[in-house]
Amino acid sequence: MASSKNLDILFEPQAKKIRTLKGTTVFQAAKDAGVEIRSECGGKGLCGKCRIIVKKPDSLSELTESEKRLLSMSEINEGYRLACQARVLEDTVVVIPPESSFELRRIQATGKERFLEPKPTVEKIFVSLPKPSLSDIRPDYERLLNALEAIKKFEGLEIDYDVLKGLPDIIRQSNFKVTATLWDEHKIIAVEPGNTSEELFGFAVDIGTSKIVGHLVNLATGETLDIESLENPQLAYGEDIITRITFATADPKNLRSLQTLVVEAINKIINGACKRTKKDSNKIYEIVVVGNTAMHHLFLGIQPKYMALSPFTPAIKTRLSIKAGELNLRINPSGIVTVLPVIAGFVGADAVADVLATGVCDSNDISLLIDIGTNTEIFIGNSEDMLSCSCASGPAFEGFRIKHGMKAVTGAIEKIRIDSNLEVEYETIGREKPIGLCGSAMIDTVAEMFRHKIIDRSGKINRDIKTPRLRKSNGELEFVIAWGDETKTKKDITVTQKDIREIQLAKAAIYAGCSILMKRKKLKEKDIAKIFIAGAFGNYLNLENAKIVGLIPDVPLEKVEFVGNTAIVGAKMALISKEARKRADEIAKKVRYLELAADPSFEKEFLKATLIPHKSLNRFPSIRRFLRSG
Amino acid sequence: MASSKNLDILFEPQAKKIRTLKGTTVFQAAKDAGVEIRSECGGKGLCGKCRIIVKKPDSLSELTESEKRLLSMSEINEGYRLACQARVLEDTVVVIPPESSFELRRIQATGKERFLEPKPTVEKIFVSLPKPSLSDIRPDYERLLNALEAIKKFEGLEIDYDVLKGLPDIIRQSNFKVTATLWDEHKIIAVEPGNTSEELFGFAVDIGTSKIVGHLVNLATGETLDIESLENPQLAYGEDIITRITFATADPKNLRSLQTLVVEAINKIINGACKRTKKDSNKIYEIVVVGNTAMHHLFLGIQPKYMALSPFTPAIKTRLSIKAGELNLRINPSGIVTVLPVIAGFVGADAVADVLATGVCDSNDISLLIDIGTNTEIFIGNSEDMLSCSCASGPAFEGFRIKHGMKAVTGAIEKIRIDSNLEVEYETIGREKPIGLCGSAMIDTVAEMFRHKIIDRSGKINRDIKTPRLRKSNGELEFVIAWGDETKTKKDITVTQKDIREIQLAKAAIYAGCSILMKRKKLKEKDIAKIFIAGAFGNYLNLENAKIVGLIPDVPLEKVEFVGNTAIVGAKMALISKEARKRADEIAKKVRYLELAADPSFEKEFLKATLIPHKSLNRFPSIRRFLRSG
Ligand code: FES
Ligand code: FES
Repeated sequence: MASSKNLDILFEPQAKKIRTLKGTTVFQAAKDAGVEIRSECGGKGLCGKCRIIVKKPDSLSELTESEKRLLSMSEINEGYRLACQARVLEDTVVVIPPESSFELRRIQATGKERFLEPKPTVEKIFVSLPKPSLSDIRPDYERLLNALEAIKKFEGLEIDYDVLKGLPDIIRQSNFKVTATLWDEHKIIAVEPGNTSEELFGFAVDIGTSKIVGHLVNLATGETLDIESLENPQLAYGEDIITRITFATADPKNLRSLQTLVVEAINKIINGACKRTKKDSNKIYEIVVVGNTAMHHLFLGIQPKYMALSPFTPAIKTRLSIKAGELNLRINPSGIVTVLPVIAGFVGADAVADVLATGVCDSNDISLLIDIGTNTEIFIGNSEDMLSCSCASGPAFEGFRIKHGMKAVTGAIEKIRIDSNLEVEYETIGREKPIGLCGSAMIDTVAEMFRHKIIDRSGKINRDIKTPRLRKSNGELEFVIAWGDETKTKKDITVTQKDIREIQLAKAAIYAGCSILMKRKKLKEKDIAKIFIAGAFGNYLNLENAKIVGLIPDVPLEKVEFVGNTAIVGAKMALISKEARKRADEIAKKVRYLELAADPSFEKEFLKATLIPHKSLNRFPSIRRFLRSG
Repeated sequence: MASSKNLDILFEPQAKKIRTLKGTTVFQAAKDAGVEIRSECGGKGLCGKCRIIVKKPDSLSELTESEKRLLSMSEINEGYRLACQARVLEDTVVVIPPESSFELRRIQATGKERFLEPKPTVEKIFVSLPKPSLSDIRPDYERLLNALEAIKKFEGLEIDYDVLKGLPDIIRQSNFKVTATLWDEHKIIAVEPGNTSEELFGFAVDIGTSKIVGHLVNLATGETLDIESLENPQLAYGEDIITRITFATADPKNLRSLQTLVVEAINKIINGACKRTKKDSNKIYEIVVVGNTAMHHLFLGIQPKYMALSPFTPAIKTRLSIKAGELNLRINPSGIVTVLPVIAGFVGADAVADVLATGVCDSNDISLLIDIGTNTEIFIGNSEDMLSCSCASGPAFEGFRIKHGMKAVTGAIEKIRIDSNLEVEYETIGREKPIGLCGSAMIDTVAEMFRHKIIDRSGKINRDIKTPRLRKSNGELEFVIAWGDETKTKKDITVTQKDIREIQLAKAAIYAGCSILMKRKKLKEKDIAKIFIAGAFGNYLNLENAKIVGLIPDVPLEKVEFVGNTAIVGAKMALISKEARKRADEIAKKVRYLELAADPSFEKEFLKATLIPHKSLNRFPSIRRFLRSG
């Protein structure tokens, strides 16, 4: 059979060769060969990031529709293809251009999506207006209104002032045939000559503390056309929220600078997406933005000072819609920027989007939703009642305060296994020589050290273990993960006693949050039908290990699901569906917030949770079994 | 009796002396002495324009409240008083400073007002917010909303984005006691620290083709605090509407320039009013603007091209409200600019305001309302039905196309009488030597020439009349009004045959408009209960003469009322009363518009009306009686 034929592919400049089956995508073959190709849509032909160059055009399958859309004519002539679209038909040589090499920082740009009927807040209506005459002297605007109302009943329709200014010329430019864009059935935000009803786009944005992700969406179909992401440029003013708020508060100029930075980053993302998909940014009529409450305030230029001071009150909870021009966002200038509602000072619009996207508020089953980050938002409950909290899990999972910690970027160790000889196996991002350890590797390390009794339940390193990897440095015990001759830095990569303490504190904060929420709701582990893990850890977290260290409650692994960046998914849902948007409002109103700082048992719960997996082994029966058997 | 004592007042620098009764105001005494003092409020102590300086302070009555408000401490120490307030107690010397000499151009800045209960669209509410605590972590905005809703029920309250940005600081600045300003019961447009509910101001503006008038109003009381006016700076781009529209249409830049000019003029007026009354312009929360449809479009920067081309469609009819900041109007930046609705391309928001102010739409009696200008708007009807039209009466009444015509400014002859010897008496504005003839003098001239049979019913000058004043110049007959030795220019001021023709055309246009409206409504002169004359002519028009020339229908003079600038009065009504504002909307919707150009009988009606007073003397029985008796 032709499809079972084995073919050879050579990847350049890596000079890696692999034997694969005819019909395999270049993307899959590269993966198998250990050659990383950039991708932001997971190989769906959406992001256009997986460009490769093929030397023998006929050796690959024909151009797909995605490729025709995402590649320019001249690129196609130069042999550019998309790796996820092109399938191998003959032996071939594939060049990975620099722009397609694996991205420096892994950005969780997508999440688990649910099907949603597109029913966006913006709609386009094409109308043909009767021409004015001495017997029909209706003004242009009333003429337009009457025509729109003949098609659909509207109440209290208004027109954007800037649109009104150009109206007389626009309607005469196209012989009185125009397309009106309506927002929320009450405001005309665009009138364009001719029939442009096919071009109805929106943008969803998740402003993370460290990254900004944007999706360009066809509002008519709900389809994602492109995905873009960027580092949050506010990082220059502080890795964490409090540093940025302090900076913003010092001078009104600073607040404006931070706002401008994030607005310009979003503009860059929009511009990139429009360029690649060859869409006109004036045809983007709405942006839905989510972010934690601090990002929300900084994006809107709202004084964030008091949300950082007890009792941590934000300026506003409710959903807001502002004209794009007012915020200097470069979509249609009369387009609308909608910011989803927040729940509290530390449970933001991104968390509302998490709840929306996972549907935990719609189900009768009890769910636990954990969005892990520097601040971890936790939700528990079901459609009847939901309780939330935020815990300061700190930046340890992002590599801060860890001796060899680093972010999940190329060269970071992301997976670790310790064998019975206490030798270490690891994997790095980008298959490069290791530079340091990212969050998931730290969880692995603590779990594996615990499994092999290198540390005890209190997290203390057992100095009696016999292995050259265990040693003292500057008076502190540490365990060597990678020797200098394996690493890029030529120095040993180690995990210190202090690093383990940091991870214990971080995981204890998260577990204590879960625990207090469960207690308040009078729920036990067995009552939890599902745990959703959202956030940057993504799929890289080893769940078994997460349970061993006591990061999450002890439930069967099949009940745990990684959902990725559900914040952007929720934002997109609110963008394409009015129903979903209303649901977000309901979520923000309905979800109760528990201020952990005000809970008298928090301190005790936190201390108990610092043990591995926990002071009370009754709460971790599966680990207790393992400890007994071990 | 003390009050009957005669006193001497000397006016400087005019060096005019007059004997007057004790207790007379300086303003009245000056008038009696033929010394003109500036005034824009008609001597009500509102405008502060009638400043004079008194040398012997004790010779005048004590300072009134108005004076204390409108004059600064240092001015008072320098002997400044307001002429309309100060009453003469002893012989005295009064200096008229240059700024109080009679204004160059007579601007009709006020009109007849009706009492109206103040119920403005903007309201202020002072609230004391509970302070946030760990057990009350409501966001600032929700905290404010809850407090407002505890006082009054609101629905769908929103907050201006710029106000929201500063909210956290504002409420903490004043220990959680703030004053919120609400617009139309649904939008929070200001939040100020402390209790500022006493400071609630608004501004009414009438943008005329040649002048802009503004009134600063205390919205709590409905009281006018100050009146200001300026020439419309767009005059530099054309005296008439069509020239300006042509200019605006030539280049989008031009439209923006014209808009900027009028906005800056309004800012100047606002600034002047605030300075004089010592009010903070940030405490002005709404401006209500009226103007003819062209001024309306130019003010808003809306393409006005098509309203100048048949079928003369404006861009929009309905009332509009726009954020002040968007229009660069310098009141509270989140304040609202409301533009009243228009009826048609040539029946604008000023005409809607006329109808509102005169109440012709509220009465069961039939009224005829004529707002005379370059375009004259005419209304006929009552509360059941009202019909309107606009006629191009042209600029003859403003002195254009008239050989010695001029505007109603200092030096213009405004009143004329011809005696049986065919000698001429006249009065000039400012009691200066004459320079030319303004509109009311032209009506007087035509009427008086007709009375003395110097012209016949066709307007033709009778060359057989024996008087040195009748002569031929450049082959054309003319009548001398003032001889060169009496005039400022040293040249004779005359009225030519052509001038008379121009006046005939202008008055014929107005009369034909009235006539067609009456015919359409099947009304006769006897059905008309009242004729209101609004516009720049003001009180200077001799009504008897207006009837003789056939400018207005022949009704008893007691049925005719001059109402002055009712456009500004209507604007002010809509500013201080929501009811009046709604009424303006109803007027714009309900008043039918008749396009004279589309009326088949217009041409005939117009020609008949060019005769003096009219081709059909049956329509002017009072003139017929006079003709028979003469
Ligand atoms: S991975 Fe190929 S298009 Fe995204
Ligand atoms: S005339 Fe005296 S204050 Fe206006």
